[in-house]
Amino acid sequence: MRYCIGVDLGGTNIKAGVVDETGRILAEDSRKTKIPRPESEVCADIVETILCALSRAGLTLDDIEGVGVGCPGRIDSGRGVVVHAYNLVWREYPLCDALRASLHCPVYLGNDANVAALGEVWAGSALGASSAVIITLGTGVGAGIVIDSHILMGYNEAASEFGHTVIVHDGAPCTCGRRGCLEAYTSATGLVRMTREAMEQNPESLLWKLTDLAGVDGRIAFIASRKGDRTATEVVDRYIGYLACGLANIINAIQPEVISLGGGVAKEGDPLLIPLRERTYQEVFGGLGEKYTRIELCTLGYKAGIIGAAMLALSSAGQKP
Amino acid sequence: MRYCIGVDLGGTNIKAGVVDETGRILAEDSRKTKIPRPESEVCADIVETILCALSRAGLTLDDIEGVGVGCPGRIDSGRGVVVHAYNLVWREYPLCDALRASLHCPVYLGNDANVAALGEVWAGSALGASSAVIITLGTGVGAGIVIDSHILMGYNEAASEFGHTVIVHDGAPCTCGRRGCLEAYTSATGLVRMTREAMEQNPESLLWKLTDLAGVDGRIAFIASRKGDRTATEVVDRYIGYLACGLANIINAIQPEVISLGGGVAKEGDPLLIPLRERTYQEVFGGLGEKYTRIELCTLGYKAGIIGAAMLALSSAGQKP
Repeated sequence: MRYCIGVDLGGTNIKAGVVDETGRILAEDSRKTKIPRPESEVCADIVETILCALSRAGLTLDDIEGVGVGCPGRIDSGRGVVVHAYNLVWREYPLCDALRASLHCPVYLGNDANVAALGEVWAGSALGASSAVIITLGTGVGAGIVIDSHILMGYNEAASEFGHTVIVHDGAPCTCGRRGCLEAYTSATGLVRMTREAMEQNPESLLWKLTDLAGVDGRIAFIASRKGDRTATEVVDRYIGYLACGLANIINAIQPEVISLGGGVAKEGDPLLIPLRERTYQEVFGGLGEKYTRIELCTLGYKAGIIGAAMLALSSAGQKP
Repeated sequence: MRYCIGVDLGGTNIKAGVVDETGRILAEDSRKTKIPRPESEVCADIVETILCALSRAGLTLDDIEGVGVGCPGRIDSGRGVVVHAYNLVWREYPLCDALRASLHCPVYLGNDANVAALGEVWAGSALGASSAVIITLGTGVGAGIVIDSHILMGYNEAASEFGHTVIVHDGAPCTCGRRGCLEAYTSATGLVRMTREAMEQNPESLLWKLTDLAGVDGRIAFIASRKGDRTATEVVDRYIGYLACGLANIINAIQPEVISLGGGVAKEGDPLLIPLRERTYQEVFGGLGEKYTRIELCTLGYKAGIIGAAMLALSSAGQKP
C-alpha cells in the first residue's frame, strides 16, 4: 500500500491526515493556525501535526511518498510558493521549501478549493469521474475543475472562478467588482440578501415570525418554505432558478461528467437537489442524451481537503517535486 | 518530415489538404458536398479530394500517417461515427470505417469547430499556447477549447457551447430555447437584432441612409459608427460590452492562455479588438497579474479546419485509431 500525507491549511485550523492510495484516511491530527504569527511558527506546527497523525497511524516519514498541502489564496504550484493568501496574511512564502527542510520528502502545494475538488473525485461524490466540477455554496461560491484526475488551474493558476461569471448582466453588485455574478445570487450571502428583500416586500410572511432582518441566514427561507410560507417558497424558487442557470452554463461550456455541490447551502439536500436537477436539465443545450452530467452533493465534507491534498502528492510523486 | 491529411467536411464544400508536421499546407483540393445525396457518394468524393490534394503535393497515401476529418454536428470520435449532423442530413453514419475501407490508413473524426480550434493552436493565433478558447462570431457563436494540445470535448463530446451560456438572465430568446445566451447578444444575428432595434428607436440615425431594416447585416453598425453616427456607436458599444462580459466569464472560469476570435464579426479588426480587450480586462477576477489571457483574432480563416483536422490525425497517429 502507498501512503501520503494531506494537509488542509486554513486561516483557523491546520489539519493533517495519513491517506492510503484508496483515499482512506488512516489517522488525523489538527492544531489551531493562530494567525497572525510568523510563517516559520505555522510551518513548525504543520510539521508537528503531520508527525502526530503519522504516529497515530503507526507509521513514520519513511513510509510516505510525499506531502500535499491545500492552501487558500493564490498559489504558484511550480515553485511551491504561496503568492498571496489574505486569510494567512502571507505573501510570496516558499512553503514547500520550508516544509521539505524539516520533512526531507517531496512536498506539493495547491489551492485549497482545487485540492478539495480533487478529493471528491478521488474518494467522494465524483469518484472515478473523467471530469468534474465541484461548486461550494458558502459565503462565496467556490469552484474547482478536475479533468482526467488533474486540476484545471488555468494559465495563471487562478482557475476556476465560476462563481465570478456573470449570469445577470448589470445585476446585483458582486464582491469582485462585477455586477450579476453567479456568486451574487447563489452564495449563502446572495440567498440572505434575496430573503431580506422578500421580507421587506412581504410584511405578512411567516419569515418575520422566525427571525428579524439581522438574523436572516441561508437556511431560513428553506425552513419557512417547508412550513408552507409563500414568500419563502418564492425566494427558494428564485434561488434554485439562478443556481440552475449557473449549472446549465457550466454544463454547456465544458460538459463535465459530474457537478457536485458542497458548502452550507448544499446541506439542504433533496429539497434543493431534486428541483435543481429538473430545472438545470431543462436548460442543457440539445437536451439530455444518453450521456449527461450528473448533479450530486459532495460527500466528504472537510475531509475532501485532506484527501485531495494527499492525492496531489500521490499523483505527483515520481515526477519533479 | 511527417505528413497527414486534413479534411474539412461542410454542408457546402469538401476541402482536403496535405499538411506537414509544422502545420504548413502543401497542397489543397475541394469539391461541392452536393447534399442531399447518399453518404457513400459523399465519401467517394472525400476520397477523390484527398487523392487530388496528395497528387498536387507530389505524394501518395504511403507517405501519410493518417487522415483527420472535421465534421459538423454531434460526433462520437471513439467509434468514428457521425451521430447527428443536420447540415449533412446524416445520422449514425460510420464515416471513419467508410473512409478506411478506401484509404487503408488510420482515420480520425472530430467536430468541425473543435478541430478548427486545434488548427489555430497548432499554426495560427494561439500558436504554442498551453490552453486556448476559440470563439467564432458568426450566425451563431461557436466555441472550441484546447488544453495541452487536446480538444476538451466533455463527457458527451458536446463541448464546448460557451455560446449557450446565459449572461442576461431572462434576456433575449436564443435558438437553443434558453433566454439571454451569449449567442443571442454576440452573434452576427444578435448584432443585427440590436441594430434594427436601435434604428426603430432612432429615426434620425445615419443607419437609415445606409440600409432599410431588411438589409441590416453584422457590419452596418460598425460602418455607421466610423462615420460618427451616435446611434450606431451606441449599438457597437453595447455589442462590445456583451462580448466583454462573455470573454471575462470564460477567463474567470478556465483562465486560458489565449482567446481567439474568428467568424464574420471578428473581421472588424482593431475597432472591435482594442475596446474589447480594455473592457474585458476590467472584469477579470483579481485584476490582471503578470500572466493573463491574451485576446487575439484568428489568423487561419478556413484553413484552420484543414490544419486542425490534420493535427487531430498527427497527434493521434500511433494510438489506437
